[in-house]
Amino acid sequence: MAISVDTFFLNSDAQGTLQAQIQEMIAEGILSGRFRVGEKLPSSRKLAVHLGISRITVTLAYTELLANDYLTSRGRSGYFVSENAPVPPIYTPPVQSREAVDWDTVLVRKFTGGDTPRKARDWRGYRYPFIYGQADPSLFDHANWRLCSLRALGQKDFAALTDDYFDQDDPLLIEYIARHTLPRRGVIARPEQILITLGAQNALWLAGQLLLNQSSKATIEDPTYYTLRDQLHHVGCQVDCIPVDQDGLPPQDISDDTDVIFCTPSHQSPTTATMPMARRRELLQRAHDIDAVIVEDDYEFEMSFMRAPSPALKSLDSDGRVIYVGSFSKSLFPGLRLGYIVGSEAFIRQARALRANVLRHPPGHVQRTVAYFLSLGHYDAQIRRTAKVLQDRRQVIEEAIIEHGLTVSGEGVYGGSSLWMQAPDGINMAHIAEQLKPDSVIVEPGAPFFSAQHRKHNFFRLGYSSISANRIAPGLALLAQALKQAETA
Amino acid sequence: MAISVDTFFLNSDAQGTLQAQIQEMIAEGILSGRFRVGEKLPSSRKLAVHLGISRITVTLAYTELLANDYLTSRGRSGYFVSENAPVPPIYTPPVQSREAVDWDTVLVRKFTGGDTPRKARDWRGYRYPFIYGQADPSLFDHANWRLCSLRALGQKDFAALTDDYFDQDDPLLIEYIARHTLPRRGVIARPEQILITLGAQNALWLAGQLLLNQSSKATIEDPTYYTLRDQLHHVGCQVDCIPVDQDGLPPQDISDDTDVIFCTPSHQSPTTATMPMARRRELLQRAHDIDAVIVEDDYEFEMSFMRAPSPALKSLDSDGRVIYVGSFSKSLFPGLRLGYIVGSEAFIRQARALRANVLRHPPGHVQRTVAYFLSLGHYDAQIRRTAKVLQDRRQVIEEAIIEHGLTVSGEGVYGGSSLWMQAPDGINMAHIAEQLKPDSVIVEPGAPFFSAQHRKHNFFRLGYSSISANRIAPGLALLAQALKQAETA
Repeated sequence: MAISVDTFFLNSDAQGTLQAQIQEMIAEGILSGRFRVGEKLPSSRKLAVHLGISRITVTLAYTELLANDYLTSRGRSGYFVSENAPVPPIYTPPVQSREAVDWDTVLVRKFTGGDTPRKARDWRGYRYPFIYGQADPSLFDHANWRLCSLRALGQKDFAALTDDYFDQDDPLLIEYIARHTLPRRGVIARPEQILITLGAQNALWLAGQLLLNQSSKATIEDPTYYTLRDQLHHVGCQVDCIPVDQDGLPPQDISDDTDVIFCTPSHQSPTTATMPMARRRELLQRAHDIDAVIVEDDYEFEMSFMRAPSPALKSLDSDGRVIYVGSFSKSLFPGLRLGYIVGSEAFIRQARALRANVLRHPPGHVQRTVAYFLSLGHYDAQIRRTAKVLQDRRQVIEEAIIEHGLTVSGEGVYGGSSLWMQAPDGINMAHIAEQLKPDSVIVEPGAPFFSAQHRKHNFFRLGYSSISANRIAPGLALLAQALKQAETA
Repeated sequence: MAISVDTFFLNSDAQGTLQAQIQEMIAEGILSGRFRVGEKLPSSRKLAVHLGISRITVTLAYTELLANDYLTSRGRSGYFVSENAPVPPIYTPPVQSREAVDWDTVLVRKFTGGDTPRKARDWRGYRYPFIYGQADPSLFDHANWRLCSLRALGQKDFAALTDDYFDQDDPLLIEYIARHTLPRRGVIARPEQILITLGAQNALWLAGQLLLNQSSKATIEDPTYYTLRDQLHHVGCQVDCIPVDQDGLPPQDISDDTDVIFCTPSHQSPTTATMPMARRRELLQRAHDIDAVIVEDDYEFEMSFMRAPSPALKSLDSDGRVIYVGSFSKSLFPGLRLGYIVGSEAFIRQARALRANVLRHPPGHVQRTVAYFLSLGHYDAQIRRTAKVLQDRRQVIEEAIIEHGLTVSGEGVYGGSSLWMQAPDGINMAHIAEQLKPDSVIVEPGAPFFSAQHRKHNFFRLGYSSISANRIAPGLALLAQALKQAETA
């Protein structure tokens, strides 16, 4: 690659001659790894014009660098970074010499820390990845996704998709969600009641920002999706963390002064509990009585391979009180970052304005690709294929669990892609998880899901969406062994 | 398309027989436009199994709907929505009957309103679109973009890109920005100092959230990018709006208690003023003296077709005090939603955590496509091509402006894609813009760029990035005519 003339600037404050400055710029570029072996320097004429200096100055600088083996000359084709130049393996510009700003004071809000755990980016390198929420590339219909993407990149779509949508979404995608996706959950909504988000997490964030402030109270499930807890922490509202039971969130435990209830009725996250119909009605009645809004995260409903899923809580909502959150990231691939939020028009109008303020809109091309993938039936086919594979794995994992005497605390009656597991009291699953890494096993410690006041360390989540069936039994054997050793230690 | 069995649910509260319920569900689906002419109903066997009822009940319901002409039967291939069924033109589910929630009270924060204007989505239908910030599809290298996208969709990249990145970015894109993009602005940064954002607007939002709260003060240019003002309004900080002059923001007008200065030194938005080097040093000195942080929005630097751009303010920053914002959305296409923010590691760490909290990360595939488009040289080629076309248009527009006696208030000395125009005093450009729409002319009223206290109504922005050269003169003729009429009225 040729080195662009635009990367050269003269510094009017600099010490030394112009020639020395040019030599230094080039030497710095090479030493920092910014310029690489074989890359072509701008011609002396070009660089001289660009910097507004005499060509002879540039030529002298190049000649000097040639003598020092930083550069090499290939006759009339010009100057190149020499093979003998000292080259660091990667681009590592020097750490800034001086930090005059006291960032600790200047940063008035801090977002690091919190309950959201850091996860292994390199999970694909593990033999036994009982990891949750990552894609299994062997299940994804990659060929058709590419075709849909190409179609969305076609000349016809391109003009529409490359525009600035301001605050709008792809009408094709919205229509599909309204006509096909939501009706499967028993939900009927008009386009004005639907907003596309950067994944379900972004939808939860929007709801938290709009519905809560420092004088309000949110009620959340305990355990729950940790990032939701982090989001509410930054809102600064009061948060009631209500322990869930085998049927999910108990409505009678919700305090009278709750403004917003966050819940996962179809498939509690992470315990996988399904809320029975009677309790759903009870929950809606409770919300009605205390005039609270409910945010329903209907995650993983597509993974119902054991029994048809019950309709969403939102489908029973005659008050317009439920805000519904769905996602395509889970069932397609998490790097997609595409979800949706459904609610009363007054709410969606504000959510749209907040989204526009923060980021305008999710990329148009991604929206259109998903719209095609859905409307051509590839999504449904993929869900069916995935469900079949998950069902097989579920059977294998259940058998292995029995064989190794492990304890299941929650297993989705409709299906799902993970089990919620309980290790014996006194076991710290964070330690076990660390210990298992050298054995190429990934399990997810459960502690981050619990609020600080109810935190338990002997739970863990066992995902089976990214591990092939034949790896499950040997992986669980290693886990069982580690647990046994820890117990007897 | 076949109607999925999953969209049928029995309502245990419903009145009437099971057969009547099924008829009603199907009729509702047809009447609301959710089921369309020719779409196939599930087989009676399938629907009966799904609902857990007798097949004869379903068959009776279907027979009844057949008699009423809602459905038609094609012998053994099943039941379909009849051509004679009453079908609304688009899907319009009924408006929810009851809104039990008082959204005005429940929504504790409101984001509608504000200074950000609503713009015409249908600008492509106009003959004379002097619109700003939209792509010109005739300039975009669509073929190579598709190739890059396909490459990023290839089997090799796919696994990496479909993963949940948690809080990380595509290392390829980050490396390119560090090695090639930033050095052109005289900026040297390490990967840990760079974060990818959902466009420049998202970058400004992140900075506002982290650096300001209700007890701090921001200084912004006046006029300025209106959405920035909206963002700061929602932060709740004090905002000083400092009128810019021909050289941009005057440093001596920045008050001592300013915490953060937002500015556009290379190319003031919207006046296009370029800040001279001497003033840049003065601005840095002023920021140093009052210990303020500077957020530099370096927009449109690629559009420097008249003169090489001066290096970014950030390149002169020896304090680590400048946070730099760049974007690919403007120079590629705005629907892309991809930008970056560069700053001290302590700042980027928090920006990364905030981004992860709100939306995790920008879609991986979009990042990788841009990385390829950049590293294969297509981006540079496109910038050169665009610059050439803009240069031609600039000449045409300047000539037409002189011909029609219009007044330029600001014109970028480096180039750019718009002019900042001044109509005679007393003219309200919002009215003129409305008036010109039937003549197929779009111009952008300038008032929203001004703060409330300094608002002027006789300015406007004339974009030339989406209008072909031969349309410029006739479009300006219409504009000049409207202005003349308004003056004499």
